[in-house]
Amino acid sequence: MLLGKVIGTVWSTRKDENLVGSKFLIVRQVNLELEPQKSTVIAVDSVGAGFGEIVLVAQGSSARQTTFTKNKPVDAVIMAIVDKLDINVKEQLKEILEN
Amino acid sequence: MLLGKVIGTVWSTRKDENLVGSKFLIVRQVNLELEPQKSTVIAVDSVGAGFGEIVLVAQGSSARQTTFTKNKPVDAVIMAIVDKLDINVKEQLKEILEN
Amino acid sequence: MLLGKVIGTVWSTRKDENLVGSKFLIVRQVNLELEPQKSTVIAVDSVGAGFGEIVLVAQGSSARQTTFTKNKPVDAVIMAIVDKLDINVKEQLKEILEN
Amino acid sequence: MLLGKVIGTVWSTRKDENLVGSKFLIVRQVNLELEPQKSTVIAVDSVGAGFGEIVLVAQGSSARQTTFTKNKPVDAVIMAIVDKLDINVKEQLKEILEN
Amino acid sequence: MLLGKVIGTVWSTRKDENLVGSKFLIVRQVNLELEPQKSTVIAVDSVGAGFGEIVLVAQGSSARQTTFTKNKPVDAVIMAIVDKLDINVKEQLKEILEN
Repeated sequence: MLLGKVIGTVWSTRKDENLVGSKFLIVRQVNLELEPQKSTVIAVDSVGAGFGEIVLVAQGSSARQTTFTKNKPVDAVIMAIVDKLDINVKEQLKEILEN
Repeated sequence: MLLGKVIGTVWSTRKDENLVGSKFLIVRQVNLELEPQKSTVIAVDSVGAGFGEIVLVAQGSSARQTTFTKNKPVDAVIMAIVDKLDINVKEQLKEILEN
Repeated sequence: MLLGKVIGTVWSTRKDENLVGSKFLIVRQVNLELEPQKSTVIAVDSVGAGFGEIVLVAQGSSARQTTFTKNKPVDAVIMAIVDKLDINVKEQLKEILEN
Repeated sequence: MLLGKVIGTVWSTRKDENLVGSKFLIVRQVNLELEPQKSTVIAVDSVGAGFGEIVLVAQGSSARQTTFTKNKPVDAVIMAIVDKLDINVKEQLKEILEN
Repeated sequence: MLLGKVIGTVWSTRKDENLVGSKFLIVRQVNLELEPQKSTVIAVDSVGAGFGEIVLVAQGSSARQTTFTKNKPVDAVIMAIVDKLDINVKEQLKEILEN
């Protein structure tokens, strides 16, 4: 899954009939320090994510495995809202020293 | 999903028999300011998108979840025409200041 | 789908038994001006494409949606031979001026 | 599959109901010398992987082929813990000399 | 499919129970001149490929379409051993002259 932050919404009236009611959110990818990265993805929300929240996005056919997205033409879904990341300190230090 | 703009059409006479009647559009990826990016994708239209319109493209197996593309050998479909993007201003500013 | 040009063939005797009879073509990605790009993909031919022809390649599970590739371990298929591209002139000009 | 090292955990309370009990690990991609690379992926653990372990990650629909991930909206799974890599010395040397 | 060369093996004792008996090979991507490239992928062998052999790798759900990989959590499979590549000379020359 991709780690990202909800930064906006896409509005669409003309869309596939199965998508009526689906909410398209704009998610900007973030790194492990939660800093915004360049790439963004448009994902359907299945967990009630709000602006500024850190989320996990599942892509591909896995994006259709929620009750909100089943059999729908969507390739990205927000399936979890992140409480916190827990990064192993020793690993983090080693990586900083090595780089 | 990928955000893009319809910029052309691909004409093809010799194609898989299941694709007769499918309309292949050329979509150039755009960023959140709707500025054209380098990458393009050829996608089947399922919503009647026209030249210059901003659209969402679903890729992979999800591209086969519309009535127009079911069981067809296509890996990208236009499944929504975008009315507008709504980007959180605070997030936008923070990102500009941080970058 | 990806736009490419057929530039060669891959010969293979030892392969998955389901692939006997499948023709593997080497496709070089081209841009919208049909200029060769760096990346290449090996794709199964389902439409009788020949050397030098411009084709569309579908990837992922969609590559298995032709009668030639059904249930076979292939992740790329040539499913259309391109007659011509029709790019919106106004869009083209705007992009040239903006870049 | 992707070769990576487990470097952390993602905690999430609000998530798709099918994901209750799933453990999300942060995996940093490593090269064949096991040196950390830039990209990371969040993957569900299906083999009891711990911090610092070298693992294989399967992505896409294949990530749903374990008993832990079946029918769940996840696109990456840790499906093996790596004991060791065995790289052909001759190949390694040739590559070093050629590069 | 991706063109690559087998350069090693991954050993794993603790893995998904469906993967017992699967052989994980390290494949380095090669270009059309068979020169090693940067990216590598770990793929299950379904054709008895050996060290140094040039192979084709199918990825994604297509990697599960061999008898060795059916319903298993693997996203890359070696499904063919390459005898030779046949590149159209005229195309090759044109590309060299144009670049």
